Amino acid sequence: MRPQVDLEKLQKLATLIRYYILAATTQAGSGHPTSSMSATELMAGLLFGGFFRYDAGNPAHPNNDRLIFSKGHASPLFYALWVAAGKLDGETLINTYRQFGSPLEGHPTVAYPYVEAATGSLGQGLSIGVGLALNAKYLDKLPYITYVLLGDSEMAEGSQWEALEIAAYYKLDNLIGILDVNRLGQRGETMYGHNLEAYERRVAAFGWETILIDGHSFTEILEAYKKAGQVADKPTMIIAKTIKGKGVSFLEDKNGWHGVVLKKEEFERAIPELGKIDKTLRGQIAQPEDRHPENPVPGPVDNLHYPPDKLVPTRNAYGNALKRLYPKFPDVVSLDGEVSNSTRAEFFEAAYPDRFFEMYIAEQNMAGVGLGLACRGKIPFISSFAAFLTRAFDQIRMSQYSDTNIKFVGSHAGVSIGQDGPSQMGLEDLAMMRAILNSVVLYPADAVSAERLVEEAAKHQGIVYLRTTRAATPILYAPEEEFAIGGCKVLKRSGQDVATVVTAGITLFEALKAYEELQKEGIAIRVIDLYSIKPLDEATLLEAARETKVIITVEDHYVEGGLSEAVTSALATTPVPVYLLAVRKKPKSGLPGELLDYEEISQQAIVAKVKALI
Amino acid sequence: MRPQVDLEKLQKLATLIRYYILAATTQAGSGHPTSSMSATELMAGLLFGGFFRYDAGNPAHPNNDRLIFSKGHASPLFYALWVAAGKLDGETLINTYRQFGSPLEGHPTVAYPYVEAATGSLGQGLSIGVGLALNAKYLDKLPYITYVLLGDSEMAEGSQWEALEIAAYYKLDNLIGILDVNRLGQRGETMYGHNLEAYERRVAAFGWETILIDGHSFTEILEAYKKAGQVADKPTMIIAKTIKGKGVSFLEDKNGWHGVVLKKEEFERAIPELGKIDKTLRGQIAQPEDRHPENPVPGPVDNLHYPPDKLVPTRNAYGNALKRLYPKFPDVVSLDGEVSNSTRAEFFEAAYPDRFFEMYIAEQNMAGVGLGLACRGKIPFISSFAAFLTRAFDQIRMSQYSDTNIKFVGSHAGVSIGQDGPSQMGLEDLAMMRAILNSVVLYPADAVSAERLVEEAAKHQGIVYLRTTRAATPILYAPEEEFAIGGCKVLKRSGQDVATVVTAGITLFEALKAYEELQKEGIAIRVIDLYSIKPLDEATLLEAARETKVIITVEDHYVEGGLSEAVTSALATTPVPVYLLAVRKKPKSGLPGELLDYEEISQQAIVAKVKALI
Repeated sequence: MRPQVDLEKLQKLATLIRYYILAATTQAGSGHPTSSMSATELMAGLLFGGFFRYDAGNPAHPNNDRLIFSKGHASPLFYALWVAAGKLDGETLINTYRQFGSPLEGHPTVAYPYVEAATGSLGQGLSIGVGLALNAKYLDKLPYITYVLLGDSEMAEGSQWEALEIAAYYKLDNLIGILDVNRLGQRGETMYGHNLEAYERRVAAFGWETILIDGHSFTEILEAYKKAGQVADKPTMIIAKTIKGKGVSFLEDKNGWHGVVLKKEEFERAIPELGKIDKTLRGQIAQPEDRHPENPVPGPVDNLHYPPDKLVPTRNAYGNALKRLYPKFPDVVSLDGEVSNSTRAEFFEAAYPDRFFEMYIAEQNMAGVGLGLACRGKIPFISSFAAFLTRAFDQIRMSQYSDTNIKFVGSHAGVSIGQDGPSQMGLEDLAMMRAILNSVVLYPADAVSAERLVEEAAKHQGIVYLRTTRAATPILYAPEEEFAIGGCKVLKRSGQDVATVVTAGITLFEALKAYEELQKEGIAIRVIDLYSIKPLDEATLLEAARETKVIITVEDHYVEGGLSEAVTSALATTPVPVYLLAVRKKPKSGLPGELLDYEEISQQAIVAKVKALI
Repeated sequence: MRPQVDLEKLQKLATLIRYYILAATTQAGSGHPTSSMSATELMAGLLFGGFFRYDAGNPAHPNNDRLIFSKGHASPLFYALWVAAGKLDGETLINTYRQFGSPLEGHPTVAYPYVEAATGSLGQGLSIGVGLALNAKYLDKLPYITYVLLGDSEMAEGSQWEALEIAAYYKLDNLIGILDVNRLGQRGETMYGHNLEAYERRVAAFGWETILIDGHSFTEILEAYKKAGQVADKPTMIIAKTIKGKGVSFLEDKNGWHGVVLKKEEFERAIPELGKIDKTLRGQIAQPEDRHPENPVPGPVDNLHYPPDKLVPTRNAYGNALKRLYPKFPDVVSLDGEVSNSTRAEFFEAAYPDRFFEMYIAEQNMAGVGLGLACRGKIPFISSFAAFLTRAFDQIRMSQYSDTNIKFVGSHAGVSIGQDGPSQMGLEDLAMMRAILNSVVLYPADAVSAERLVEEAAKHQGIVYLRTTRAATPILYAPEEEFAIGGCKVLKRSGQDVATVVTAGITLFEALKAYEELQKEGIAIRVIDLYSIKPLDEATLLEAARETKVIITVEDHYVEGGLSEAVTSALATTPVPVYLLAVRKKPKSGLPGELLDYEEISQQAIVAKVKALI
């Protein structure tokens, strides 16, 4: 039984929270007080009304309820809640909010221990919530509830509707959205203003239960959480009419106050309006049941085996590896954007259907769900065409600020996919994934290295990108060969090498063919398989630079931000000349070989370049 | 009056179209016949039922109706329609479809003259359609209608719902969607299968008129187009129940046939099922009224003026420039993602409200709408935070295949935005925009160069990215200074320069401060404002390399894919050492100066690096 809730105390807590919202933002000189004040009762009611169950002594408790501030700019409210909960010193909040080195950043990041995932790019929190809720319902099988606080402006983001549709599809009755309809966006009224029914119609049509309330009435708020907790087989959205800047007359429902803080004298004028502030008052957060998921025990896996004379696409090796390695990495989960028969995630799905989640053609939400799963210790492998992962760039970008552990796998890389044409060709994916701080970027050429690198990716803690190829390619390596992140393989070398070709993936085979052709003419070249593009093996590149005097990079990717620039960047202080063979002309439909020739990244182009240089 | 439609002829045309769909894909050995066959009647009814008005002799006619295949993989249907219209030779289709060099690419590109915009990454066509329809209703004021053929699988993309909400918001009754609900996606059933009501509920909730039909009944199809043409003040979605592979018994409604073509013997078996094929039959497309938009006449503009002693943020200069230059570029349109008070697009909005379209927080659709407007000769300037433009990477990527003319403007670049923290910092935007083929990437440091570069961007035909800064910065240049795309400015130079600092934007001021500090110690450095990052002024960089022996790049962006790699890439064959100062640590909230120091891209870091090198 939930204890009787003291409404008067909740009111006082709301007052206290508003005080800290205003005090911290005025002191910092920046922040979003009014966006925080509209949701104060909604959040105070959740945390201190007996609904939210959270062991604040152990944020990692697997059965803690989860709370995501999708409207991350309401961070003053988030931090003030923890002051009211007695877990953060009020003066610390006031004096360090937004200061350099403080965990109380302008938008929530995981520097602060009660933050599940960094937010602040709008329209991403609900997807993270879907991941957390999927985990509870289908993987950890725990009764925790995931709550997501949403802003009304951010409902314009398509990613929200991706999250809504998937949440309903998976019947996530353990997911509760709280939509803070305060009418005003950053620069004026939102698309629907205070028309709550506009949101209700849309959200209900997407298969959610909806509850409309006055977002400043604790009675309605508590009743809404109670009702939401009883809904079966679908998620619930509490749609709350609120007032931006609520509590201070000259802020309430006024345009022009978004992201604007009170000056000292305005602050002095505002505080008396809040009423009596009891700085000693503390709210109580309920404890979760002490339940834990079953702990999966890693088991042995089969050795990999590819007959050396058979062609195998690296995408197939990806699917094979994920399936083969699962017993060793029982936290692995596979997500795919309705192309699992192309990415070969279907191999894993067939073997472990309970660990596979079809995310349909909605890559943004897929990335966000991956982040949510990773928050709960899972190792999500997220696959689609390399080209279509660009759809989730903002989500991937944000993930890095959650110190997350997600693996992205992009298939159908480069012009070598052929006839389908440029729309399906991943030609910017290396640039995108290299630009993520501390990311690992891998591009195996053959099935053996692809399998090994899937294993390395699973082992590595962090964001990893694995690029796979559509075409079937020869086996290059013996099954026992090792592939470390940050390594490379020198496949051809001699004392007479006149140049080094550094490449990876499909074009490695072009380099090897070029090697053979040049050999016949008595010209020796070094060939390096740079399967680890980030980090890369600087020492081996420097050695090659020293010994062969010329480097030629070859890649099936636009020249900007890809393997070529990774190499020039690594060799920036070395005087060796580097020649960059990469995609430089608008690709078109055609046979893979025709396109490699057209873009001058084929055997022929490599041979010509080597000959021109010697 | 529309002439009486000959239903029997339409049936025969559908048969003919199906023949070419199957013949072309079988001959090519790849393609999507079944996805084309489900929409055959829908499209034949549109083109040959008297609705679509198009001067095939003049695809650029401003009053042509517009047709976008959002489900671009149905390209065989698209091309076959033009065979049936007598505008494409059937044998040419069969023999060149998907061949290297043929305009009949695997997914539609603008290589084929009847294609408005390249499609093939799903969920993008409706946004393009919104742009075309906005243009007709609010800019060109022409009665043309925009039709968009949509697949059911792609309705999972959030970008669709962004397009739906904006189309309803702008009351686009000249936009008609045709949703081909064939139940089957690439790898199995879609989220809603043949549940047409699931789509109807959602689409209607988003403010559209909906019409449910049997997508193979010409009677229902023609009636639907008629009704759709009469709807006022809102867009219409025709939701059609169709059969994937319709017309061939062993393909109909069968899973496993997505993107799979018939083998020769299967083709032989299928063709008789279609019925009698009359290869001489041709359909008639109605002509549009010969109406033209008012042709805006460019007028004179004011000179720019900034007092040399006042600090001005480049984002303000952007807003000022757009407003100031509009008379000279009357095709300019401004789109913003609900942050116009931050990007300063609001300056333009205030002056030319009819040329400004609020796109709310929905960057994917914003980019697609821009493409649609550019298709009709407008020059869209699309602004948001640099960080949030990553949201539209896939749309930007696809735009390049439409040879489009769009300007993207990203504000709040880099760690120098300060307290708001990493979620708001554009640190990957240069990498993203450089990776677009033939893009222009500009990063002005002061208000004068920002204004000049806005003008260059407006003049340039192609995709341009302009990066602006939040902070107010000093004026560096005289108002008459010229800034060419591909140029740079050598701000400090002497015969004694021991190093060249190449930088742009906010860090240029750090370089200038470092210059002063080093001057005092008798150390001379060269300082280059590389405001044009792509293309870049190789000659001046080479000269600096020759003369100063060392290059130091400095940028407020992650090291991968940004200015630093642009420079190392340009100097790849030159032996000069290049040292890269860029963002390399996870940023946080703090003061701009603290963050520049922390990331070692400030005056202090530059001075230290120069001293370490000499």
